[in-house]
Amino acid sequence: MKWLTGSDLDALALGATFLGTGGGGDPYIGRLMAEAAIRRFGDVQLVDIDELPEDGLVVPAAMMGAPTVMVEKIPSGKEVKTAVNRLETILGRKAVAIMTIEAGGINSMIPLAVAAEMALPIIDGDSMGRAFPELQMTSLHIHEVSATPMVIVDEKGNNLVIDAIDNPWTERLARSTTIAMGGSAIIALYPVTVNQARQALVRNTISKATRIGHLLQDSTLDIDQKLRILAASYEAHEFFQGKVVDVLRRSADGFARGTMTATGMHQYEGDILRIEFQNENLLAMQNGVVVTTVPDLICVLDSETLRPITTEMLTYGQRIRVLGMPAESVWHTSKGLETVGPRYFGYDFDYIPFRRSL
Amino acid sequence: MKWLTGSDLDALALGATFLGTGGGGDPYIGRLMAEAAIRRFGDVQLVDIDELPEDGLVVPAAMMGAPTVMVEKIPSGKEVKTAVNRLETILGRKAVAIMTIEAGGINSMIPLAVAAEMALPIIDGDSMGRAFPELQMTSLHIHEVSATPMVIVDEKGNNLVIDAIDNPWTERLARSTTIAMGGSAIIALYPVTVNQARQALVRNTISKATRIGHLLQDSTLDIDQKLRILAASYEAHEFFQGKVVDVLRRSADGFARGTMTATGMHQYEGDILRIEFQNENLLAMQNGVVVTTVPDLICVLDSETLRPITTEMLTYGQRIRVLGMPAESVWHTSKGLETVGPRYFGYDFDYIPFRRSL
Repeated sequence: MKWLTGSDLDALALGATFLGTGGGGDPYIGRLMAEAAIRRFGDVQLVDIDELPEDGLVVPAAMMGAPTVMVEKIPSGKEVKTAVNRLETILGRKAVAIMTIEAGGINSMIPLAVAAEMALPIIDGDSMGRAFPELQMTSLHIHEVSATPMVIVDEKGNNLVIDAIDNPWTERLARSTTIAMGGSAIIALYPVTVNQARQALVRNTISKATRIGHLLQDSTLDIDQKLRILAASYEAHEFFQGKVVDVLRRSADGFARGTMTATGMHQYEGDILRIEFQNENLLAMQNGVVVTTVPDLICVLDSETLRPITTEMLTYGQRIRVLGMPAESVWHTSKGLETVGPRYFGYDFDYIPFRRSL
Repeated sequence: MKWLTGSDLDALALGATFLGTGGGGDPYIGRLMAEAAIRRFGDVQLVDIDELPEDGLVVPAAMMGAPTVMVEKIPSGKEVKTAVNRLETILGRKAVAIMTIEAGGINSMIPLAVAAEMALPIIDGDSMGRAFPELQMTSLHIHEVSATPMVIVDEKGNNLVIDAIDNPWTERLARSTTIAMGGSAIIALYPVTVNQARQALVRNTISKATRIGHLLQDSTLDIDQKLRILAASYEAHEFFQGKVVDVLRRSADGFARGTMTATGMHQYEGDILRIEFQNENLLAMQNGVVVTTVPDLICVLDSETLRPITTEMLTYGQRIRVLGMPAESVWHTSKGLETVGPRYFGYDFDYIPFRRSL
């Protein structure tokens, strides 16, 4: 058991953004939110799922929508609490802990903010081990947990409860609502018992993100040392360095979709890298050859500071390093690949496991 | 007090389609639905609002969506009951009567079908006195009644509860959900007490529609006699006869939007009539001059049979008569015109009261 304080937030937001693989929201905004909540309501207890009572109710909370919109529409902790409370009312019981749906700069911080406000612990884990763009892309879904009843609220005070026949329908109905609400919304969904969560969650995501964040921030290490530790500890390997020369971005169907092109530098001189994204980075092509695909992680970092760059922050001229990293094992199962593999996203090829290409 | 039986349905559906002014759904499909429900569950009592207990709960039920989709997606009575029951559960009380939201071939029949299934009476009245395309376009809205909590269900089993900050937001959120559900959905909304409904509803719409339906069907009268009765009883006057020469139709934003053009015949020879519609007919232009606008009714009828033609059934070559008819007085108030006048629909001119132009 451990307490998360204001001083942990920077590293956690940064590391979660690294795992967010382009999505999950901007770490700066997320950190401000969580910081304000912790300052006002106190530190948050980080618990392992095994420390909680088996039949306790766990409520995941998150922000949904296009990151391009999220950065303009900062949620208040109040909305998140409204969503969680509404779900508690529907289920007729109180939550014993808050859970994180995905890693990401905002979506690692929203659960913290509401946990602080509700004086509840937060579970060290999430349902993706990274970020994905759609609601059914969770380890909970893989373990047959229903995403509904789901509550979706906006900053104006609108409030919907969804009961859907399956998780892809939940995604469809929640997505159209999010678009109608202005492009982003606050959600509480996938209510689970501790026992269900034990089977289904990805463990230790919060502590792992915090460790990665501390590593990225560590001023006693140089870039090469950091990259070596990332490789040794997380199998995260650099496969490109270069300069962003083109970003094509559009908000479509409630997502930030687009393509980034970069030209190689240093040992990658002459290479062309293209990354396609839907909120999160979906695939990387090096000189026309696909080298990394969902569900594996494609992490775009600032070349000098190693700060992760989210898809909405990509811009011409940025010097970047790109790392690949294997996804959690749940995503390499057949149901995992069916749910988040390249074919689901409309690509006509199978998953290509990321391998260090050096 | 009166009982509606299977033999009343034809006239009611036909008259309601007349008042539906192009929208509210196809009378044939609506009639089949209500007929099946009455055959199975028995006749439905038609009551005046004053016959019901003051604090009783009244639940309006309807189909929402583009009529072009509605004719392809016939609801079962079961879905409507699911929606009404869910609203009862949310409110913690049982309905004493079902109410009709709008006149129309389907939307006059859905309340009847569910009233039969639930063995509840139906109120002789509605909230428009015609049909309008959006949820906030009701006399209940004009009387400050909230449309939420609102339940929206589809034929697959998906189910949403909306609580919105105001009725235009309810429209927006329900519309996007309807689109996501495939273009049409079943709704239960505007729950009211009998006392609230007394102030706010448009009275006698069901009996009026039935009388109009009987008149249109009456084989002992010729067309001129029928038109004279429509004029004398309902101030409904023919202002055009001709042939449909063009129908431009598109499904946009969840609505059936479009324009119909017809060339005049007989005493209207040389005239050109254009009608613009959004589910319902919005305005009629004769030779480039606006002659009738929302909220007044524009009723397109088959030239020989006087059967009303809904906007999704308009087609090249039809011989039509077009009648104008003043809307219920609630729509001529300043809040009424703000809600459903031409400016709301994006036209840059004020309401032009329909006058017999002969």
